[in-house]
Amino acid sequence: MNRRMVVYIIGVIVLAEAGLMLLPVLVALLYGEEKQLFAYLVSAVGLAAAGVLLRLFKPKKKAIYSKDGFIAVALGWIVLSLGGSLPFIIGGDIPSFIDAFFETVSGFTTTGASILSDVEALSHASLFWRSFTHWVGGMGFLVFVMAALPLAGSANIHLMRAEIPGPDVSKLVPTSRGTSMRLYGIYLAMTLAEIILLLIAGNGLFDAATISFGTAGTGGFAVKNTSLAGYNSATQIIVTVFMAAFGINFSCYYLLLSRKVKDFFNNEELRVYICVLICAGALVAFNIYSSCAGLFDTLKTSYFQVVSVMTTTGFTTTDFNAWNETARMVMIVIMCFGACTGSTGGGIKIARIIILAKDAVRRVRRALTPGRVECVRMNGRPVSEPVIDEAHSFFIIYMIVFVISVLLVSFDTADTVSNVSGVVATMNNIGPGLGVVGAVGNYGSYSVFSKVVFIFDMLAGRLEFIPLIALLSRRAWRN
Amino acid sequence: MNRRMVVYIIGVIVLAEAGLMLLPVLVALLYGEEKQLFAYLVSAVGLAAAGVLLRLFKPKKKAIYSKDGFIAVALGWIVLSLGGSLPFIIGGDIPSFIDAFFETVSGFTTTGASILSDVEALSHASLFWRSFTHWVGGMGFLVFVMAALPLAGSANIHLMRAEIPGPDVSKLVPTSRGTSMRLYGIYLAMTLAEIILLLIAGNGLFDAATISFGTAGTGGFAVKNTSLAGYNSATQIIVTVFMAAFGINFSCYYLLLSRKVKDFFNNEELRVYICVLICAGALVAFNIYSSCAGLFDTLKTSYFQVVSVMTTTGFTTTDFNAWNETARMVMIVIMCFGACTGSTGGGIKIARIIILAKDAVRRVRRALTPGRVECVRMNGRPVSEPVIDEAHSFFIIYMIVFVISVLLVSFDTADTVSNVSGVVATMNNIGPGLGVVGAVGNYGSYSVFSKVVFIFDMLAGRLEFIPLIALLSRRAWRN
Repeated sequence: MNRRMVVYIIGVIVLAEAGLMLLPVLVALLYGEEKQLFAYLVSAVGLAAAGVLLRLFKPKKKAIYSKDGFIAVALGWIVLSLGGSLPFIIGGDIPSFIDAFFETVSGFTTTGASILSDVEALSHASLFWRSFTHWVGGMGFLVFVMAALPLAGSANIHLMRAEIPGPDVSKLVPTSRGTSMRLYGIYLAMTLAEIILLLIAGNGLFDAATISFGTAGTGGFAVKNTSLAGYNSATQIIVTVFMAAFGINFSCYYLLLSRKVKDFFNNEELRVYICVLICAGALVAFNIYSSCAGLFDTLKTSYFQVVSVMTTTGFTTTDFNAWNETARMVMIVIMCFGACTGSTGGGIKIARIIILAKDAVRRVRRALTPGRVECVRMNGRPVSEPVIDEAHSFFIIYMIVFVISVLLVSFDTADTVSNVSGVVATMNNIGPGLGVVGAVGNYGSYSVFSKVVFIFDMLAGRLEFIPLIALLSRRAWRN
Repeated sequence: MNRRMVVYIIGVIVLAEAGLMLLPVLVALLYGEEKQLFAYLVSAVGLAAAGVLLRLFKPKKKAIYSKDGFIAVALGWIVLSLGGSLPFIIGGDIPSFIDAFFETVSGFTTTGASILSDVEALSHASLFWRSFTHWVGGMGFLVFVMAALPLAGSANIHLMRAEIPGPDVSKLVPTSRGTSMRLYGIYLAMTLAEIILLLIAGNGLFDAATISFGTAGTGGFAVKNTSLAGYNSATQIIVTVFMAAFGINFSCYYLLLSRKVKDFFNNEELRVYICVLICAGALVAFNIYSSCAGLFDTLKTSYFQVVSVMTTTGFTTTDFNAWNETARMVMIVIMCFGACTGSTGGGIKIARIIILAKDAVRRVRRALTPGRVECVRMNGRPVSEPVIDEAHSFFIIYMIVFVISVLLVSFDTADTVSNVSGVVATMNNIGPGLGVVGAVGNYGSYSVFSKVVFIFDMLAGRLEFIPLIALLSRRAWRN
């Protein structure tokens, strides 16, 4: 293992995070929040010093192995979250270490699960930082930082593999610095577009920016206790559209920019994604119609909530825990489905669901007519067997982590539905679940032990398990 | 498709069922239950007549294809259950058709889920028939009937593949008429041994026989409203031991009989099975200790319930729905695990769990060190890739059926925990779940639609999905 290189990479991350923290410093200045100004400045300076120190470990060779990439990404995300939680503790907005860490992990992993019962009591600087972590986490921070630095390409490939979620079915996954920069360009442009539209819809810049960060990263932290329920219909509709848009594979937008409109609409994952969204929304609308004020309100509410949950954002305009059983179950199922590969959303990912379903059909056919040879096809091309195997093993690991997490959390005092939906909501990086962790609840009442489990689940879900497992495996640490 | 052969096979099944019904006729005679005597006699005669008629379709050729085997098994089980529900309806013990069908499917699939709130109101003949269906279903009725008849061997192989559950990892799965007859011999001998021990423990013959049928088939129908709670400790302990024994791969007993004691104890599935039983029992005991009367009572209760649920039997001595959250979650997890391959138990099966877990570990290792080639080993021998693929596709189909079932049942009025655990309890052929379908509840309050879903789940779980899917696929019906 190239330990020096891993330490060096972490040094770069810490240094970059120090830079990012100058933004909430600015917000604290603007709003005259002196205590927060101090907290964010101290944190930034501390991180910068740590980063400079760590970067003294100049790597002798730049090449790293696959497992080093996983370790670097897992450690990087943990260090990033530890660093990010400093100002919450120092500034007193979230004095408890585990709560501050939970909140920051939830931010960077774009989960949006909160331990806070009163968000509005937070300072502007902290509210901004909380939402900003979504935006940073959504775009794949390590890859971004490394791509922006003149570092070795081989290291980048391994970091990318470890940090970018989803099966590698598309040809358009960022493979060169050029493509990845273009994808980040799209991300930035779409965020700016949402901010501008939200401003036009009558929101202040602070709300527009924080909501847009939460949408772009498919995070879900809001700056109001009622999440997005208090905003006007125009805002809610704009957010619905952008949440759906950020759940789409960014490579698809690349296709649009390259004027390959036909390829865009022929993308199978995109078509299934839209189809599931429409059907789930209609099913939910049918089930909540009686409790809403007319058809417009029903559709607005159901589609906002379905899009929010399926893209793993987690904004809410209503307490969907109070819906009827069918609507609640639809929500849990689409929570697990998640968004598209190569988007900022989490979950199992639509591409994997398609591959697994098609493979199941293939196996049934093969059982009925043995000897039959058939391959799984996607976007008209055959999917290679290793990609299918990856989807299967992802699903098994997903289920193993799910079962173990539910068992561990069951030692706590909450009920079955809260525990199970809490694990679903953290593993898939959504945020709100059902029961006590529902739209109007939070994770604050759980014990420290359960919070640690949820933190693991958020990180494991965001990094798709392997990096965190690598961190726990002796084999990966061996030289 | 060899339709004539499928019809012929079903004719044989119906005829054999008519023969089996002479046993409850005898019970009705013994207890002087005239109405039931009439009901079971009429049903037996009716089935015999139908069987003779169906057998007029003499097949022109005896060879059948794989898909014909699946269709024959699926249709066979449905016809068997329809036939078995006749006396319940005619005799008035369960007058509603859907309820009688539910109860019979639950019997033959060795589920033990009931729609009855007062079991003790049933006649002796019906109680006997209900428990006897477990015993018949447990041993794989079609294979037994066909093996006992001088029919073509090729047909048998296909029926066996479709009816006998579990991945084909062991070399000892019945492949010839000789081995399968020897396995049935073991089944019969163990059932007799349990009956004798239960008689010695102070139970009457009726109770001893019905309990033993329920244990042998890992079914779980009892003849008392309180299941096995009212019996003495000796009875409960004997049943615990026999439930555990019937959850073991019967091929293992074959090894014992062949004096290959070392091979017996080296069987990996058996070791994991025993290990999970011991650990789960200890974990549950730890969690329910405060509510029990001392250590003996705690261990007796926890191990009875853990063994009952993991072997997918479903007898109860306590209302485990009232346990704390951890104990309840342990129960749900081991419900899904199920028993060993080649036993009478249901669930995912321990062998599949081992294969899937080992494959997950292998994939993680391969991700950390690409290019690494490693095979999954079981009992010291490498497991072939098709067997691993089968486990994965089984698991995916299992999850698809699970999710769709939960969504369909959610249209009903019960709560989340009841619905989800009800689907788990029927798909894995256990019987009692949590909530309204818990140990002291039943499935009677569900709508007809939900009951149909549960019936499908019980059959799908018992036959491991493919036969039922084949029944619904146009492809399989094609010539």
